Amino acid sequence: MKIIKVGGGTSINWDYIGKDVSAILKKEQLIVVHGAGSIRDKIATQLNSPSKTIISPSGFVSTYTDKKAIEIFLMVYPGLINKQIVAGLQSYGANAVGLSGIDGRLWEGKRKKEILSQEGSKIKVIKDSFTGRVEKINTALLKLLLDNQYVPVLCPPAISDESEIINTDNDTTTAILAKEMRCKEIIMLFEAPGLLKDYKNESSVIKHIPKDNIDNYLQYAQGRMKKKLLGAKKAFETGVTKIYWGDGRVPNPISRLLKGKGTIIS
Amino acid sequence: MKIIKVGGGTSINWDYIGKDVSAILKKEQLIVVHGAGSIRDKIATQLNSPSKTIISPSGFVSTYTDKKAIEIFLMVYPGLINKQIVAGLQSYGANAVGLSGIDGRLWEGKRKKEILSQEGSKIKVIKDSFTGRVEKINTALLKLLLDNQYVPVLCPPAISDESEIINTDNDTTTAILAKEMRCKEIIMLFEAPGLLKDYKNESSVIKHIPKDNIDNYLQYAQGRMKKKLLGAKKAFETGVTKIYWGDGRVPNPISRLLKGKGTIIS
Repeated sequence: MKIIKVGGGTSINWDYIGKDVSAILKKEQLIVVHGAGSIRDKIATQLNSPSKTIISPSGFVSTYTDKKAIEIFLMVYPGLINKQIVAGLQSYGANAVGLSGIDGRLWEGKRKKEILSQEGSKIKVIKDSFTGRVEKINTALLKLLLDNQYVPVLCPPAISDESEIINTDNDTTTAILAKEMRCKEIIMLFEAPGLLKDYKNESSVIKHIPKDNIDNYLQYAQGRMKKKLLGAKKAFETGVTKIYWGDGRVPNPISRLLKGKGTIIS
Repeated sequence: MKIIKVGGGTSINWDYIGKDVSAILKKEQLIVVHGAGSIRDKIATQLNSPSKTIISPSGFVSTYTDKKAIEIFLMVYPGLINKQIVAGLQSYGANAVGLSGIDGRLWEGKRKKEILSQEGSKIKVIKDSFTGRVEKINTALLKLLLDNQYVPVLCPPAISDESEIINTDNDTTTAILAKEMRCKEIIMLFEAPGLLKDYKNESSVIKHIPKDNIDNYLQYAQGRMKKKLLGAKKAFETGVTKIYWGDGRVPNPISRLLKGKGTIIS
């Protein structure tokens, strides 16, 4: 069984991914996890509630997710994008079933009741943020679907132990999902051909990162890539043996990545 | 097993419904089907794509569902509303799983490639409408969930045999769902205490409608109620023996309806 995690960029090509998914399904079970960040930001702006970010006192950037932001999140992640992906996969013969972390308490965690935000020289306490960290996976529901030839297509938000809807970091959740499902290999597709030595040069792909030496490569990771690399580190701590990073914009994105065209962390 | 169909009005109280659902689940399996029409219309206006209607040459009013309208539909039905309902039911202990008709090809039909629209004295042919009628239900997926103590929470859109996303009439689909699931009783909750003899007077509830005499009651049905009454007629043709119509705004909406507070068609 493999987990395929696809980023939320607008130039990801789900037709290419759909064809590959359908071919791989003949040989093994797949779980798809996806984002939708770029489109969420676009719709949020259209609805006059542009996405806001919080910077923690330690310099960590995250999305400020209040009640209104959660509503827009629900519209775009499990609504617009998840269902378009599911219909697309169905058109390539994959019997996809889209679920959020709320459904069947698939992804359950604790809500952070207070988060700190650095605003200039002041630190503000935010109490209306609906975010948290996934701690429990409903593996029984996933196995039920997988054993009956369905392809689970998963996305945030998750649900808290008090049944609140909470946003979570998708890369961290994917690592926890891999652990609980005893999945050894994760395929990650985004809008780059892999980790680049020079982020402006798409032909400077780093072919291999030794899993015990990930920290040495943090110097090459720009912006969100840094978080992804730390997510990969976490995944190896939980039993994953190989992570593929590759381009979600090109034909045969998964099969070419499995043949080595991208960054392999192992 | 019962099907609970809940309308898409904004004054439906899902807390009241959640409590009742959780109590009934101790005795029997439930499938929930819901709408989201009012909120869809509101969000569509906010996104500068207000919902439009089509009048067929025979006078039948329906929503004009082009590509843009389908996108908004996805945002509101399986996104915002379905997930809020699922989280709400979860908070009352019902292990709800939200699915659209697209997921696992749960509701499959044929897309109407052309529909006719009466515009003044002219009849226009509309080709960019994504609507259709559900013909197949994935009963295996529903039974899989029910037999594992999940509560399926279903909503449109459906999927066409060519994997297009299509809007469908929710009351008709509920009747087909009841047939395929061999469900004998449907509970329908909306923003009225039942079918009213005088639609302005909420105390004029018609207590009983004989199932073989539904046509005689069409005179009391205003607007969308007419469609619901015709939907009920269809349901009886497919094996349903009892339909409950009641108020989704009041405490204990289901249990009071089962005790006779509403309109019973049988």
